[in-house]
Amino acid sequence: MRDVSIIGIGQTPVREHWEKGLRQLAVEAVLAALQDAHADQVDAIYVGNMLSGELTRQEHLGALIADQLGMSGVAAMKVEAACGAGGSAVHAGYLGIASGQYRRVAVVGVEKMTDLWNGSVTAGLAMAADGEYEAANGISFVGLNALMMRRYMYEYDLVEEDFAPFALNAHKNAVHNPNAMFRKSVTLEQFIKAKKVADPISLFDASPVCDGAAAVILSRSENLNGSAARAVAIQASAVATDSLALHDRQDPLWLRAVELSSIRAYAQAGVTPQDIDLFELHDAFSIVAPMSLEAAGFAQRGAGTYLARDGGIALGGKLPISTMGGLKARGHPIGASGVYQVVEATQQLRGEAGKNQVSHARIAMTQSLGGVAATAVTHILKGKN
Amino acid sequence: MRDVSIIGIGQTPVREHWEKGLRQLAVEAVLAALQDAHADQVDAIYVGNMLSGELTRQEHLGALIADQLGMSGVAAMKVEAACGAGGSAVHAGYLGIASGQYRRVAVVGVEKMTDLWNGSVTAGLAMAADGEYEAANGISFVGLNALMMRRYMYEYDLVEEDFAPFALNAHKNAVHNPNAMFRKSVTLEQFIKAKKVADPISLFDASPVCDGAAAVILSRSENLNGSAARAVAIQASAVATDSLALHDRQDPLWLRAVELSSIRAYAQAGVTPQDIDLFELHDAFSIVAPMSLEAAGFAQRGAGTYLARDGGIALGGKLPISTMGGLKARGHPIGASGVYQVVEATQQLRGEAGKNQVSHARIAMTQSLGGVAATAVTHILKGKN
Repeated sequence: MRDVSIIGIGQTPVREHWEKGLRQLAVEAVLAALQDAHADQVDAIYVGNMLSGELTRQEHLGALIADQLGMSGVAAMKVEAACGAGGSAVHAGYLGIASGQYRRVAVVGVEKMTDLWNGSVTAGLAMAADGEYEAANGISFVGLNALMMRRYMYEYDLVEEDFAPFALNAHKNAVHNPNAMFRKSVTLEQFIKAKKVADPISLFDASPVCDGAAAVILSRSENLNGSAARAVAIQASAVATDSLALHDRQDPLWLRAVELSSIRAYAQAGVTPQDIDLFELHDAFSIVAPMSLEAAGFAQRGAGTYLARDGGIALGGKLPISTMGGLKARGHPIGASGVYQVVEATQQLRGEAGKNQVSHARIAMTQSLGGVAATAVTHILKGKN
Repeated sequence: MRDVSIIGIGQTPVREHWEKGLRQLAVEAVLAALQDAHADQVDAIYVGNMLSGELTRQEHLGALIADQLGMSGVAAMKVEAACGAGGSAVHAGYLGIASGQYRRVAVVGVEKMTDLWNGSVTAGLAMAADGEYEAANGISFVGLNALMMRRYMYEYDLVEEDFAPFALNAHKNAVHNPNAMFRKSVTLEQFIKAKKVADPISLFDASPVCDGAAAVILSRSENLNGSAARAVAIQASAVATDSLALHDRQDPLWLRAVELSSIRAYAQAGVTPQDIDLFELHDAFSIVAPMSLEAAGFAQRGAGTYLARDGGIALGGKLPISTMGGLKARGHPIGASGVYQVVEATQQLRGEAGKNQVSHARIAMTQSLGGVAATAVTHILKGKN
């Protein structure tokens, strides 16, 4: 396999972008990434997106975005894996370069969840779950996560407050990220008083409905020329799946896809969890954070919240997570989030994360999940420092 | 790049499958392909599909189909490029093997267009075009093709009847394909009398709304072992794009994406149009066939219909097309069609096409288009004969 590097990153702020459509957001992110890479052309474009058909009556985003970029002619396609679409698109772009077919690829994750032409966000998100056995019976996507959180609390004797450190950490880190949606910290008191969205999930346990796009430019590592100094190497790109329906899992408290994709990624990169300096995990709901920490090998089973309680997830902690605000506070534009994670990890590895810089960050891991972690896509990135 | 071979093929009949859902169709096709390959496991599954969200309220097909196959754990994702989703999924699967990351991959194209949970097929298909500048103004997808056909007839001084040979050839070839939807031949008189769907496109110029799934198992060519004798090599896999909106094209009668992807594919395979023994083109509407023949280098500009008139596209002709019925008569389950083409070309190259066998078929080309050829995916396959 050819070695693959990230040579450019770009992102729009995550907001309710009432004045911009999906195509504008995507183009803005790709152009920023191209400028960052000092490049003006790519061979292929991979678009990570979940809901464009449901919410904006537009499929065929590959050709659309190539067209809007003035790049018609290049190869292009959309990659979908529910909320894990962004990570999956990075994986597809990575394989495009690793195969030798493409020399330079743009991967853009984009989602437009406000100002709908059609449908509803809640119905759209339910398409990440099993339509015939879950959604058709009326359960929403947040409802599925609530069931999982309730069970987790019961099994491990926890209360809602034990999950607060994840939200507080994410919001604290978002304050200094100009692209984050919620640039304000949250206190424990505010967390405790927050209204329930789907009991036991409260407002501060759930990521927001929002719009955004993030992009990376990938290149063969041997063709870097002038951009080599800031390039970040992709040392692993691994995808795994689990049963789509929560009720089909023998152990509903173990994220098997997270475990498998992490193990594969560690093997590809030749590292262990101890080597990871920061972890951008998929904190779409608070409950997903501790379960990801456990399945990825950073905490014992049932002990994910302890790591957070003891300050281990803070910027100066043992394993900083959600360093730019995470899905919770940077925001979670569904198919874009997996690319935002890679963009942010690259900022950290380049030493460009400003006040959120993790010191001595050399190896970063990102993890993009689809559905209730029925898809997991793990990337391990290595900087030059 | 590693060499890639097709070691197994499977398909469901194309029908209105009122008794089967999307997941059943996909599983049926993949199991048939695995059996054909004498294999029971793959490393990754790529799903080509366009409309599952719009019509059956289900996204996340990668994890869903892996799950339904009893293969949870493997990598999986959906690839979408409108009507070119099937070809794009084959391309993604091809790169998965070519990169060295995966040893064996299943690609399945599936579409369920009847028995809808939601929406409409016409509104769904319009998502292949530019939503904001075309569909939002009320034009349907068949309407866009009708505009193109009308202009083509005007520029090249043709009448509807000149397109009849494409429909007649497709229907004739479908008679002996048990998986085809319309196993009956059509006479010139029937063609002339057919009702208009969108003037000048008549019923026999348009492919049907239908359900189906087709699958291929891809492998590294060096790991073939016992299946080597029947393996078909993928010698080229090339994607190209054009402007999404028809009105944005400087020359609306030239399929630039078809030209580009064909040129790239010829270069990859080291062949010329003269070397191609059969061509499974994207005859979703009759007009697309002559325009594809021209842009792919098989006919002079404006002369695509002459090739058909002179019998050149028949099974014994200079360039047999739609050899198993094509999109017109085998049927066009949108995201599945690009995989059906590869399955059928493989049947031809193995000498397993029965009464539709193209004699001395050694090199086949398939072409899967998205939208009004805003995406084109070309594959060149080579058999052992």
